[in-house]
Amino acid sequence: MTESDLPVVQLTPGRWGDPAHPVALPAAAVDALKHLGVQRPSTDVRTSEETQGAQDRPGLTEAQVGFLASVVGAEYLASDLESRWAHTRGYSTTDLLRFRAGDTSGMPDAVVYPASHDEVAALLAGCADHDLALVPYSGGTSVVGGLAPSRRFVTVDLRRLDQLVELDEISRTARLQAGVRGPAAEAMLAERGYTLGHFPQSYEGASIGGYAAARSSGQSSAGYGRFDQMVVGLTLATPRGTVELGRAPMSAAGPDLRQLVLGSEGAFGIITSVVVRIRPRPVERHFEGWRFESFDAGLTAVRRLAQDGPLPTVLRLSDEVETAVNLADPDVLGGGAGGVLAIIGFDGPYNRATADVLTAAGGTNLGEGPGETWRIGRYRAPYLRDPLLDEGALVETLETAAFWSRIPALKTAVTEAIVGALSATPPLVLCHISHVYETGASLYFTVICAQSDDPIAQWRSAKSAANQAIATAGGTISHHHGIGTDHRDAYVTEIGPLAVEALQAVKTTLDPDNILNPGILLPER
Amino acid sequence: MTESDLPVVQLTPGRWGDPAHPVALPAAAVDALKHLGVQRPSTDVRTSEETQGAQDRPGLTEAQVGFLASVVGAEYLASDLESRWAHTRGYSTTDLLRFRAGDTSGMPDAVVYPASHDEVAALLAGCADHDLALVPYSGGTSVVGGLAPSRRFVTVDLRRLDQLVELDEISRTARLQAGVRGPAAEAMLAERGYTLGHFPQSYEGASIGGYAAARSSGQSSAGYGRFDQMVVGLTLATPRGTVELGRAPMSAAGPDLRQLVLGSEGAFGIITSVVVRIRPRPVERHFEGWRFESFDAGLTAVRRLAQDGPLPTVLRLSDEVETAVNLADPDVLGGGAGGVLAIIGFDGPYNRATADVLTAAGGTNLGEGPGETWRIGRYRAPYLRDPLLDEGALVETLETAAFWSRIPALKTAVTEAIVGALSATPPLVLCHISHVYETGASLYFTVICAQSDDPIAQWRSAKSAANQAIATAGGTISHHHGIGTDHRDAYVTEIGPLAVEALQAVKTTLDPDNILNPGILLPER
Repeated sequence: MTESDLPVVQLTPGRWGDPAHPVALPAAAVDALKHLGVQRPSTDVRTSEETQGAQDRPGLTEAQVGFLASVVGAEYLASDLESRWAHTRGYSTTDLLRFRAGDTSGMPDAVVYPASHDEVAALLAGCADHDLALVPYSGGTSVVGGLAPSRRFVTVDLRRLDQLVELDEISRTARLQAGVRGPAAEAMLAERGYTLGHFPQSYEGASIGGYAAARSSGQSSAGYGRFDQMVVGLTLATPRGTVELGRAPMSAAGPDLRQLVLGSEGAFGIITSVVVRIRPRPVERHFEGWRFESFDAGLTAVRRLAQDGPLPTVLRLSDEVETAVNLADPDVLGGGAGGVLAIIGFDGPYNRATADVLTAAGGTNLGEGPGETWRIGRYRAPYLRDPLLDEGALVETLETAAFWSRIPALKTAVTEAIVGALSATPPLVLCHISHVYETGASLYFTVICAQSDDPIAQWRSAKSAANQAIATAGGTISHHHGIGTDHRDAYVTEIGPLAVEALQAVKTTLDPDNILNPGILLPER
Repeated sequence: MTESDLPVVQLTPGRWGDPAHPVALPAAAVDALKHLGVQRPSTDVRTSEETQGAQDRPGLTEAQVGFLASVVGAEYLASDLESRWAHTRGYSTTDLLRFRAGDTSGMPDAVVYPASHDEVAALLAGCADHDLALVPYSGGTSVVGGLAPSRRFVTVDLRRLDQLVELDEISRTARLQAGVRGPAAEAMLAERGYTLGHFPQSYEGASIGGYAAARSSGQSSAGYGRFDQMVVGLTLATPRGTVELGRAPMSAAGPDLRQLVLGSEGAFGIITSVVVRIRPRPVERHFEGWRFESFDAGLTAVRRLAQDGPLPTVLRLSDEVETAVNLADPDVLGGGAGGVLAIIGFDGPYNRATADVLTAAGGTNLGEGPGETWRIGRYRAPYLRDPLLDEGALVETLETAAFWSRIPALKTAVTEAIVGALSATPPLVLCHISHVYETGASLYFTVICAQSDDPIAQWRSAKSAANQAIATAGGTISHHHGIGTDHRDAYVTEIGPLAVEALQAVKTTLDPDNILNPGILLPER
């Protein structure tokens, strides 16, 4: 079979949006890009790295093909170019740039589509004997090089594991298979009156297995928690057998092994299904905008809600730059020049007490208008990268988290590091807080500047400076994007060599032949 | 130095209460024991197992003593009998019975009292070379054989690590050293206006390090969460070096390694300090009792609060037997015969909405009387074991947790298993729920019956039957007591051999010579 025969819609390789329905940049944005010195590139190929290499690689041997087909059936083994290309890399900006450059390095040799846990388990059990490395593929939306192993590989696309297996209305839990996409999960749960409440920006493309493997966090995290907080059980297929975890919401039976598998990014095994906490579907939703004089003023307000409540379901605070860039009409903010925009949302009735806290902290209620604007555009940002890259802009995001007392200095340090590294093409650095906890919060940065001649190297330099700033200022290298290959070195620095060795020992136990995601998450030993 | 020179009050070996101030059983309780056939024993020695063996063991070599003294100082190395005896075993009923029998097996060869993380690290670094196994000792309140390693050992008593190291009022976090006892932690935080909110029944004796290592859960868990939910950072000393974890409340930087250390029960390293989330100290507290027609009716009510809120800070529901046994005056319950007692408590203002949910679920408000009675006696239960054992009763507790839909069958299965195993001495089996989550709850059982000739074997048989019932009915082997040695076999069954191997690989990485708590938590390989 080929990619186009598959029942679930696939994102377009190298573009988030459908090329048949391109997203246009607002005219104001195009003007703004001119101020950054952005020029429409004259050629599609803008990287010197690793181009056109992979096409020459040998394909699979007959024995390998025979093994794979024997497990999943010949019709669910694809080695045509279209299928392989569609499973190459993820959706970071450097991934997109490589797609645009026609860089075929990192293509899988084939794609298999198992239909069940047992088929996944059989693949894992036999791949070492057939000298095959595997990359599990759920939504394919990694932005950290999570689909780029260190050697040739076969992709295990989990889209046929697309079932709501069980719904326990007494316990309010649901077992969802790993390949269920976000919208499909919500649709299946909605039929029974429930919601998962997990709405990351990658919602349209990402899947349950990826949410779990990479510790996703959604836009409603203030109300529903992160995905790793929703998981109460999971099934992990490993090359040495299956691990079944989660007999209770919480336990004192040793370490929480669910939290060892969550975030393991396919290095320990393939998560084939997850048991998640579900909640009744809300009958009403409210979103509204608030204005604060400054990011610092807004920071105090959102911290107050995070620590003393009552928290809304959605809570976001943009800094001055993000507010200015995102608001086409600055009059929306009122109150004269400057100021920052916060968005709050409620799944369920509007909570006046939340508004009272924001008012007491100096906020001005802007009403539902800005809230609805945000709601309508909430999944739009990834689409905008396509036309921005078309125009010759470099645009990428990065994120971190820290305890509250470190947030202001961390934000300054990361911004200065990026600006310093991109001094040849002065960037705009936008920032917002979109995930809060009693003890701290995330910081999400968007960087826009003109592309240099080698935009991949250009971004790497900025990212490296940002990583260093995060480490020095006491942040974590990722709040919700994960490690992949892009963050691997920073991850080693963050947890230290002894912790890395402990995780490598877990991997060696479960995957002794290193066939799963080699080089992803952990350095190979 | 000897035990009595140490600044912190030590629980009496083999008794929870102070022998100078014995707790008397109510006359009604003594009468009730007669109905169970309980007879005051004629002798203090009631077990045939392993008596008087350890005194004959060789002590430490001069080189071993020299090493230990070189790290902690000679004045903080104790090898007198009093100190060793005080660090023998924990506080399970079988532990108490052995203490009473004068069973000196399981005594450490010595006790060291390091004063700092660095001294702990130095002990760990050198013990393999000196052929010494170590057992970390925090409060010493294990009820699952958590202080009974598989070979001779030296106890590392952490009581001198008793400092509040740092308090971050912006992030609302505090770093507390491992040896800080519950009341000391609250006193130090209260000086700054904060509370940890962790009040397990072992509160008077247990310490921060033990809370973390064994995943403690306190009586206010509905409001403050479990201890493992309060921890945002920790420092672990291992034989191979120090691991420092927690740069943010939550992270997508790989697995959550904090949750790998929490619950590791000293098998991977010694937790020397923990960073916990703190909250402002409440200015008011309210406790009250509620009556439900049956445990099943109460179960529906507490589940409704756990799933749809608003949760109080304390939420407990006793079953019919526990209600009948605990209420000296059955008229408190009103409403005729039968019925069960629930207790709710609020740190902060009374929340009428919580009461409305209970009323709608068929509950009757009994007012503050039963609430205050519970509050005053909340740490009393462990004291009652002393006079109950004196009278010849066998009394012990066990606990589990599961998803809501399994709770009724799990409760029945465990009760029947215990009653079946103790048919020669028909027991009372009391049960309550005291920890709730959206997806499930804990079940806590208290068993009282007449002692047989060999009460240790008698309890083992009951516990074994209960463990089997828990496994079959889908519960976890422990919600908050931990694994130790008593639950080790059941733990292996619960997580499976592959997960055990993964944890053994972590242990081998961090503790390659198996000097830390050998045989505790994990079987030795």
